[in-house]
Amino acid sequence: MRIVEAKEFSLKREEAEPYEKERETVLDIIQHIRQYGDQALRAFTRRFDGAELIDFRVPEAAFAEAYNQVAPEFVNALRDAIANIRRYHEAQRRQSYLMMDEEGTTLGQLVRPLQRVGVYVPGGTASYPSTVLMNVIPAQVAGVPEIVVATPPDKEGNVNPGVLVALQELGITEVYRVGGAQSIAALAYGTQSIRPVDKIVGPGNIYVALAKQAVFGKVSIESIAGPSDILVVADDTADPEYVAADLLSQAEHGETSQAILVTPSRELAEKTAVALERQLAALPRREITEVSIRNMGAIVVTADLAEAVDVANRVAPEHLELIVGNPDDWIGRIVNAGAIFVGAYSTEPVGDYYCGTNHVLPTEGTARFSSPLNVDDFLKKTSLIRYSKTSLLNHGHKIIALAEAEGLEAHANAVRIRLQKEGK
Amino acid sequence: MRIVEAKEFSLKREEAEPYEKERETVLDIIQHIRQYGDQALRAFTRRFDGAELIDFRVPEAAFAEAYNQVAPEFVNALRDAIANIRRYHEAQRRQSYLMMDEEGTTLGQLVRPLQRVGVYVPGGTASYPSTVLMNVIPAQVAGVPEIVVATPPDKEGNVNPGVLVALQELGITEVYRVGGAQSIAALAYGTQSIRPVDKIVGPGNIYVALAKQAVFGKVSIESIAGPSDILVVADDTADPEYVAADLLSQAEHGETSQAILVTPSRELAEKTAVALERQLAALPRREITEVSIRNMGAIVVTADLAEAVDVANRVAPEHLELIVGNPDDWIGRIVNAGAIFVGAYSTEPVGDYYCGTNHVLPTEGTARFSSPLNVDDFLKKTSLIRYSKTSLLNHGHKIIALAEAEGLEAHANAVRIRLQKEGK
Repeated sequence: MRIVEAKEFSLKREEAEPYEKERETVLDIIQHIRQYGDQALRAFTRRFDGAELIDFRVPEAAFAEAYNQVAPEFVNALRDAIANIRRYHEAQRRQSYLMMDEEGTTLGQLVRPLQRVGVYVPGGTASYPSTVLMNVIPAQVAGVPEIVVATPPDKEGNVNPGVLVALQELGITEVYRVGGAQSIAALAYGTQSIRPVDKIVGPGNIYVALAKQAVFGKVSIESIAGPSDILVVADDTADPEYVAADLLSQAEHGETSQAILVTPSRELAEKTAVALERQLAALPRREITEVSIRNMGAIVVTADLAEAVDVANRVAPEHLELIVGNPDDWIGRIVNAGAIFVGAYSTEPVGDYYCGTNHVLPTEGTARFSSPLNVDDFLKKTSLIRYSKTSLLNHGHKIIALAEAEGLEAHANAVRIRLQKEGK
Repeated sequence: MRIVEAKEFSLKREEAEPYEKERETVLDIIQHIRQYGDQALRAFTRRFDGAELIDFRVPEAAFAEAYNQVAPEFVNALRDAIANIRRYHEAQRRQSYLMMDEEGTTLGQLVRPLQRVGVYVPGGTASYPSTVLMNVIPAQVAGVPEIVVATPPDKEGNVNPGVLVALQELGITEVYRVGGAQSIAALAYGTQSIRPVDKIVGPGNIYVALAKQAVFGKVSIESIAGPSDILVVADDTADPEYVAADLLSQAEHGETSQAILVTPSRELAEKTAVALERQLAALPRREITEVSIRNMGAIVVTADLAEAVDVANRVAPEHLELIVGNPDDWIGRIVNAGAIFVGAYSTEPVGDYYCGTNHVLPTEGTARFSSPLNVDDFLKKTSLIRYSKTSLLNHGHKIIALAEAEGLEAHANAVRIRLQKEGK
């Protein structure tokens, strides 16, 4: 892993590919789903997943059967993770508010859940039960009454058992074994057998991402995730073996994932580089991980911790680990980060899977203005105005003055006509 | 205005034009601003606004001067509106939270303001001081330390005095007399004289809207507003003159604005249609308003109020007026609306200008999943994880089980390496 001085360091961010061919394919798929519904969904599932489906809905029996295909310790760990994630997100619950004044006017903000949300869970060879937890639980805590899931089937039409167990543990039963752009189109526009939703969340491959972008506006989406990244700020109190392991845990996600160590300690920098090479050699996903480390990784040596934190704020990482002697002196200075992991035992996988925080975090520097997935993403607000006669008689002339200053006479007139009727 | 039965009514929503030529122009403008900065900004301002500028920043003296060009009653009305809007939005303030457990682990969600926000205020012949209030005040309540404004100049390089007074009243001094796509590009990417922002909000013409879409990702934007709309649910207790005036107040916004009355009372339907024609004849913006009413407007007669509310929920209007005998029986059934105006005196301009709620509301049916502009739009969250050694020793094996179930061995390893070091 390259070691550079802070002044030589410039962040490598891949320019997004245009994906023109893929975009055309996706728009075509969406058009077919809108026009032919289930028939098209069946044809695309045959073509892309190799599965011949009559019903899209995962049958009830499949959930019970799934428990036979996973380890008991997996189920136990999952249950504890669910409890932790639920507890953490419950603190995000919102209340409506009302304000009443002495003139009899009531103003308010109603905070209510979205009615129907679709969660996409990637499938195929991979199994992502943690995706189920991180996307479904905030929606449940928000009070969304209808949560439906789409996940691609294998050639036999079966869905990953780890995913089914996670869904069953959360009480989610409306699960469709469809994937790719066709499933996003079905969720957005509806088909004969799938009713449309108000919002679609969840990660996916480039086709899923492009489909979500294309249906944005018809439905809401959460942001499209870019490559994962981690930035570790550490001083000489940090264990280089830990730092190396944490950098590798993000690097293994993909070749464009980014792992960066920023430290004022040249000794830590060098020891981490050595530890990283050794640990890397033993990893099963070594090839992907190695490309990520070579191309995107960096160890940045700074003059002091203050400069290290400056670098971190400029990068605005998805995951920021702070492994320093006096973390409390520094946490408040970290302005831009999706999640801050403090201390030697807060290794990033703790947040990916278990402790309770959400693992859907702002990537590609968007922590400057974006947030982890949270309960607010599944709530909407409605303003409530109950203006009293007294209020309108007292303040109507001011509303008229403001409307007229903008040249909007019909606005002024809607107030004036009422004042006139009251003899004002 | 056409009167139709509920079963004949289908919502007219214009398919968005592709605006391909405009999009090309906008991308070209953005490219020029990124490459040439101030020099390009100066050239575009000359070309599009006819103004020859040396400095972009509005000089301090212009603010004081602006007060001589507006009516005192306008200033008074503005001050009261500011107080109302601030009070309403202050109830939306958020707190960070922390949760500590008996194992010594701390989890939290830090809620902090964005650092720098740009507000676009349309200019030219029109004056929109209310735009200033509705976009700036929520950002101020959120605690955003740097709020900057861009608004186009006239040929002499001057900015609308109503807008300047509104800005001065709010204490906003970093104001740039630039407009159009070039100002959005400058706010997103920065130039020699304008530092880049984290988020851009505010309405504008199609060039501004396309520019905001194009820079989305580099910065955050609030949603792009479509044509304004109003839907009035009323029974025979409603005054047809009021209903007609309120429908016209939205219709005057533009030819694609949509005004709909939904009522079980055929008498109200007919009387409103008559009142509307008479009031329309007297409006200065009659031509625009008439096109909107003819093309987009409708009076829908329903079997009963329940059906009227169903229609409203399907339309998901930006503004919903509820003028019925027992409004409390119905408010809770209105699921989809940007703002609900209750009773005869809650005419929609009350919310546009004065009462305190925000007038930036979800259009085109997006009230199904979107919210009025609010303080949350200017806050971001960061997760905080301080996992204790005890917690990792107690639960580490579960994190390993979950990571391994997903085949992410480097994730498992980051936990395992710590457990091993502790002899576990």
